Amino acid sequence: MEPTFSHTLDITVRFAETDQMGVVHHASYIVWFEAGRVAWMGAAGLPYAQIANAGYNFAVTDVQCRYRTALRFGDPVQVITRLVSLRSRQVEFAYDVINSATGILCAAGSSNHICVDNRGAMTRIPDWVVEGLMGKMKRET
Amino acid sequence: MEPTFSHTLDITVRFAETDQMGVVHHASYIVWFEAGRVAWMGAAGLPYAQIANAGYNFAVTDVQCRYRTALRFGDPVQVITRLVSLRSRQVEFAYDVINSATGILCAAGSSNHICVDNRGAMTRIPDWVVEGLMGKMKRET
Amino acid sequence: MEPTFSHTLDITVRFAETDQMGVVHHASYIVWFEAGRVAWMGAAGLPYAQIANAGYNFAVTDVQCRYRTALRFGDPVQVITRLVSLRSRQVEFAYDVINSATGILCAAGSSNHICVDNRGAMTRIPDWVVEGLMGKMKRET
Amino acid sequence: MEPTFSHTLDITVRFAETDQMGVVHHASYIVWFEAGRVAWMGAAGLPYAQIANAGYNFAVTDVQCRYRTALRFGDPVQVITRLVSLRSRQVEFAYDVINSATGILCAAGSSNHICVDNRGAMTRIPDWVVEGLMGKMKRET
Repeated sequence: MEPTFSHTLDITVRFAETDQMGVVHHASYIVWFEAGRVAWMGAAGLPYAQIANAGYNFAVTDVQCRYRTALRFGDPVQVITRLVSLRSRQVEFAYDVINSATGILCAAGSSNHICVDNRGAMTRIPDWVVEGLMGKMKRET
Repeated sequence: MEPTFSHTLDITVRFAETDQMGVVHHASYIVWFEAGRVAWMGAAGLPYAQIANAGYNFAVTDVQCRYRTALRFGDPVQVITRLVSLRSRQVEFAYDVINSATGILCAAGSSNHICVDNRGAMTRIPDWVVEGLMGKMKRET
Repeated sequence: MEPTFSHTLDITVRFAETDQMGVVHHASYIVWFEAGRVAWMGAAGLPYAQIANAGYNFAVTDVQCRYRTALRFGDPVQVITRLVSLRSRQVEFAYDVINSATGILCAAGSSNHICVDNRGAMTRIPDWVVEGLMGKMKRET
Repeated sequence: MEPTFSHTLDITVRFAETDQMGVVHHASYIVWFEAGRVAWMGAAGLPYAQIANAGYNFAVTDVQCRYRTALRFGDPVQVITRLVSLRSRQVEFAYDVINSATGILCAAGSSNHICVDNRGAMTRIPDWVVEGLMGKMKRET
């Protein structure tokens, strides 16, 4: 699968997201990845809340993040999200976190997900979700 | 209702709970209150997970906290929780947060709760929960 | 002091801000209050990062929040912040949290702050900060 | 370097650590890794607070986590931390997260760190820290 369209989410670093080193705590980026992923899905016409309300969730099976340059309180940040893999039961997203004041890449990472139903059992991604994701890919490439 | 037995939960300040002022972020105390409340209920023989599994939750209707002395990364902390009011649909808990290395009272607060069912509708606290809470009170006073 | 200009911060509920009751966790509102306060200060021409860089912080001395209606993942939210008191060493802010899709007031609260220097000692709010806050008040009323 | 002694930190899942899927949010594990690492260092006779007070921090350069089985509110958890690599400027830790009621491995991950000084510049790990870490290794193997 070719890399697909990317979505950019703009956020501002919250005070609560810093730690006593004076920079953004590393776990905050994982929360931003999720926000970026949710925004990507909304931009793809598949709001995650709609998927969740239909009884499906994309449970995280792994996540990784590489930290390059610290971000600080008040920094404007872009979380750039791309869908990098789509299979019948799994999706993978990748993320770049940019300081939008400087253009510097501060962190990059990825996450893998399986589709689960309301009881937490792994299941196929519903066709209408796959079609939405694929359609978005085609529209963009 | 007379103030009832207090339960002490021991925790250690996590690095992630600090902010760039070098002290514990004020929202962390609200999470500790909850942990203290849950530990209180466990000590009362009413594990909150059991109540939740039975389809009930104690939704927070208000919370307040007064901050006196900062806590820092690694500090040993005691969260002392007391049940201060119990009515058919509502409970109130109060909390003291102590630096257990120094004995200093660092923060104090309280929270009010209503009992809700699985759909989020307000409901009476189930009798077995009230009895558990009352029984605990009697045993301690 | 008369209530002063209000600033509205728009946010979207993050998945990480929910809990197993399926609604926003109550501690998340405390973090939103802070984000609203920081945005208020930025709108007043006094970015909090600038104050912090000058060696001052507004330490929280108390916070309270009353919860009325639950918010859920994906909900669009407005945090409306007002400065309600300004003294030589203290400020108080008040907050309304609105579901901007429905207009419903979901929570309301307030926080008090003292000005502290880099060592954490209470100090007078610097004149340039007071003037900025007062100037903003005058411009708006 | 041979794998070294492991330290086990016991925690209980907090309500605030869950999300609307009814399980622990995936970012919470990253915070637990940090708590495990800090506890490891304390057990090694090198409290992280002491290192931080001496002007050094172990900044995270990357983190990864693989999720296997969900954890839920109230579950007793063991975070088992091991030092897996020690170089002049870098350390790597690995983590297993176990449901201690069932013995099931719920997640596993690792993190890499560089030593930075108070200004955030990379620096050699101080000799007394290296000696502490190495001494601990020898004592245990």
